[in-house]
Amino acid sequence: MRLSEIANRLKLSYEGEDIEINGVSGLDHPVAGTIGFIENKRMVADAENSVIDAFIVPEGVTLRKPFLVAKEPKYTFSLVVEWFSPYKPYETGISPQAYVHPTAKLGKNVTILPFACIMEDVEIGENTIIYPHVFIGKGSRIGNNCVIKSGVKIDDLTTLGDRVIIHHNTVIGGDGFGYVVHDGKNVKIPQIGRIRIGNDVEIGACVTVDRAALGETVIEDDVKIDNLVQIAHNVHIGAHSIIVAQVGIAGSSSLGEGCILAGQVGVADHVKIHDRVVVMAQSGVEDKEVPSGKILFGTPARDFMEQKRILAAQLRLPELVKRVGEIEKRLGIERE
Amino acid sequence: MRLSEIANRLKLSYEGEDIEINGVSGLDHPVAGTIGFIENKRMVADAENSVIDAFIVPEGVTLRKPFLVAKEPKYTFSLVVEWFSPYKPYETGISPQAYVHPTAKLGKNVTILPFACIMEDVEIGENTIIYPHVFIGKGSRIGNNCVIKSGVKIDDLTTLGDRVIIHHNTVIGGDGFGYVVHDGKNVKIPQIGRIRIGNDVEIGACVTVDRAALGETVIEDDVKIDNLVQIAHNVHIGAHSIIVAQVGIAGSSSLGEGCILAGQVGVADHVKIHDRVVVMAQSGVEDKEVPSGKILFGTPARDFMEQKRILAAQLRLPELVKRVGEIEKRLGIERE
Amino acid sequence: MRLSEIANRLKLSYEGEDIEINGVSGLDHPVAGTIGFIENKRMVADAENSVIDAFIVPEGVTLRKPFLVAKEPKYTFSLVVEWFSPYKPYETGISPQAYVHPTAKLGKNVTILPFACIMEDVEIGENTIIYPHVFIGKGSRIGNNCVIKSGVKIDDLTTLGDRVIIHHNTVIGGDGFGYVVHDGKNVKIPQIGRIRIGNDVEIGACVTVDRAALGETVIEDDVKIDNLVQIAHNVHIGAHSIIVAQVGIAGSSSLGEGCILAGQVGVADHVKIHDRVVVMAQSGVEDKEVPSGKILFGTPARDFMEQKRILAAQLRLPELVKRVGEIEKRLGIERE
Repeated sequence: MRLSEIANRLKLSYEGEDIEINGVSGLDHPVAGTIGFIENKRMVADAENSVIDAFIVPEGVTLRKPFLVAKEPKYTFSLVVEWFSPYKPYETGISPQAYVHPTAKLGKNVTILPFACIMEDVEIGENTIIYPHVFIGKGSRIGNNCVIKSGVKIDDLTTLGDRVIIHHNTVIGGDGFGYVVHDGKNVKIPQIGRIRIGNDVEIGACVTVDRAALGETVIEDDVKIDNLVQIAHNVHIGAHSIIVAQVGIAGSSSLGEGCILAGQVGVADHVKIHDRVVVMAQSGVEDKEVPSGKILFGTPARDFMEQKRILAAQLRLPELVKRVGEIEKRLGIERE
Repeated sequence: MRLSEIANRLKLSYEGEDIEINGVSGLDHPVAGTIGFIENKRMVADAENSVIDAFIVPEGVTLRKPFLVAKEPKYTFSLVVEWFSPYKPYETGISPQAYVHPTAKLGKNVTILPFACIMEDVEIGENTIIYPHVFIGKGSRIGNNCVIKSGVKIDDLTTLGDRVIIHHNTVIGGDGFGYVVHDGKNVKIPQIGRIRIGNDVEIGACVTVDRAALGETVIEDDVKIDNLVQIAHNVHIGAHSIIVAQVGIAGSSSLGEGCILAGQVGVADHVKIHDRVVVMAQSGVEDKEVPSGKILFGTPARDFMEQKRILAAQLRLPELVKRVGEIEKRLGIERE
Repeated sequence: MRLSEIANRLKLSYEGEDIEINGVSGLDHPVAGTIGFIENKRMVADAENSVIDAFIVPEGVTLRKPFLVAKEPKYTFSLVVEWFSPYKPYETGISPQAYVHPTAKLGKNVTILPFACIMEDVEIGENTIIYPHVFIGKGSRIGNNCVIKSGVKIDDLTTLGDRVIIHHNTVIGGDGFGYVVHDGKNVKIPQIGRIRIGNDVEIGACVTVDRAALGETVIEDDVKIDNLVQIAHNVHIGAHSIIVAQVGIAGSSSLGEGCILAGQVGVADHVKIHDRVVVMAQSGVEDKEVPSGKILFGTPARDFMEQKRILAAQLRLPELVKRVGEIEKRLGIERE
């Protein structure tokens, strides 16, 4: 593909020679013959010294190499990346080796691959692709243009919006974890609630989302969830939030809009986290209410800056113990 | 369903009007037309002010609304919840699209759904339901009245008791993680032991239970395990214990009866935890022996009250560093 | 099997009576009629007092029981363990209930069990066994003598070496977790890279390995990965490394050769860990570069010995706060 064709498709103009572009690469692993991107002026030297032949640059930046100017270089780059993908779409149609219950309603252009299992009263929207070994339980509804990867299990009465992507072996609809002790035994509290997932949600591999005890577990529009995350019963995740791998959110907790939970974070039950809260990796949130915009770190999670000060002071703790001992000696204070 | 019918079924009497009940709800998400429950007097005002129309209350409590009196309101409520479940049972019978080895022995009234795979010499007890995409390896035995959800993998020679529920995509019987270095390489130690799971055990989704190196990995009766938990080889979990999501228990460790491990706890290998020990979320237990009844917190896990005192003191640590500096100044002690 | 036969097969000589051996066991769960092993002289008394009838011992050690002498007793024992395994191999051949795309190339003696799904242009090497419900996406290549357990999902264009073992429900090839904010929404950055896995790699159950954004996610030869581990896009894991259960490694980070990450460790993104680094359980590594041979502990991970000193000092922290208060009182320093 020539640089001019890339510029044309993006409706942007280019500067420099109209070279041939064979792929995309980044500055951390630069490859000759490709197009890359930079996000600010500080990266100009790196870009010019790299083997990458052309760049998408932000407004106000020029390069001694062919370049395209874009308002949002990273976003524009992500559009170009797609064009060079070696991955090919799967053939459409319903495999004769899939199981589709006669009452299931399939939209136009749905793909169902071998050994997928679509139960009674399921509805699947247009252009959605269901990979092998997917199970969709009774009465669940999948929206349009969804991609449900191999081995995903969606239990009964679950609702998914449009353009939802779910990666392999994720489970939507295990029972919430609720018991009551009776006669010295743990008796199961039936989990009769449901799960509702909005539009444009992406969920990674081996994630577990439990259905509500009563009511609903809810993942709002445009939430992105990484691999191996646990979402317990009755959790509510606000729109546009980002949940990184191996996070666990306990029962009935909620996140506002635009929150970010970094990897391996734990959130206790019945915690209410407001909008745009950021929780640093491995932290454990137990405060019952977290105000908007807070940045938290540590277990138990505290204000990020305060925690940083404590961690810095910790480094001096062994020395501090000695210093206090010396002061006591000087003052003649006896210690056993 | 009328309140009188609910009372009848429970063999309890009711007070107030015999109203129509259309469902169940809780005080956190109250719904009109439903029945709820309260566990003590302090919740009476909340109950009376909510839109919920009737309540199950403990003995000695009365309400200015229709109510039923029960010894254990939460337990009684859990019985009522079941009656309002919108989930319908799956049809019984053996799907012609399942694979069942001719040597497998199936009890009366077993259900096997499409694409389940039952290998040589497997035995499955009465009334057990096997969902799609379940794999049961050679010689494994599943008890009566079990529910094995879609995608569960039970490898060879595993034994499950009666009334066991296993949620989707859980793996029972991966090899334990054991290697010996030889010629600079990690050589696999064959894992030839087995797994035994008792009665009334419930295991969440995407859990991994490894088979023993030699001997057995054991989960005793009435243990309840949440999602994404790791149980390593030769672990022994005592009866009635509760293991919350994302816990990891390393090789050869044991839990006594009635223990509770909160979310994301880690237990090192060869740790012996005695009865009724509680470990708080995200803690890491490395002491080789933990006495009965202890409550632990932190990494490394310490006595809960001691850890709380340390955490409180940590908040004062940055200030403490300054204070010691001032004292030294006052005393003319020089610091570089 | 007689002791003499075991010795013969191992090409070792034995001392003592040529007794009958019916199995293997370890000193933690000793069983009569079996053979065990000890690794050093300190275990001689335990060995002699146990019910185990014969032992493999290191050079220079003798026993008042039948024994074999081996250079590496644990390694030799692991060879013997295999002979007593009750697990039987699965029948070879291609199940008529599997789906194999006509363009797939299968080596000699490949086994494909029911409901496995082998897509277009897949290549599978000799003697490899594919269990039920495995999905292998377009254009992926599996080496010789691999074991791919039930429910494993290997997405398109992935390469596996020889003698690779992957346990149940593991996912190789979910998309990396990458988004760019555009118009207030999280827009997906297409993940068009690949995954390459070397020879002699073993991966546990419910592990997730993401494909690269661009370039490759790489797991080198002889790496061993436990259950429920997260390997993000563009991660590179050096040969012979050991990754224990529930570890998470974030995007673009790399491990050198022979590293050990203990259970539940987290590694932040773009971290470069050099050879033979050991990270203790539950630690969080955020330093951008970790030199060879370091031992790390804590969150944030610090030098192990330093962290141990800090933890010891922490135990004295509540007392230290009091002591500083007393000193101030003595000196007449006022505090609010």
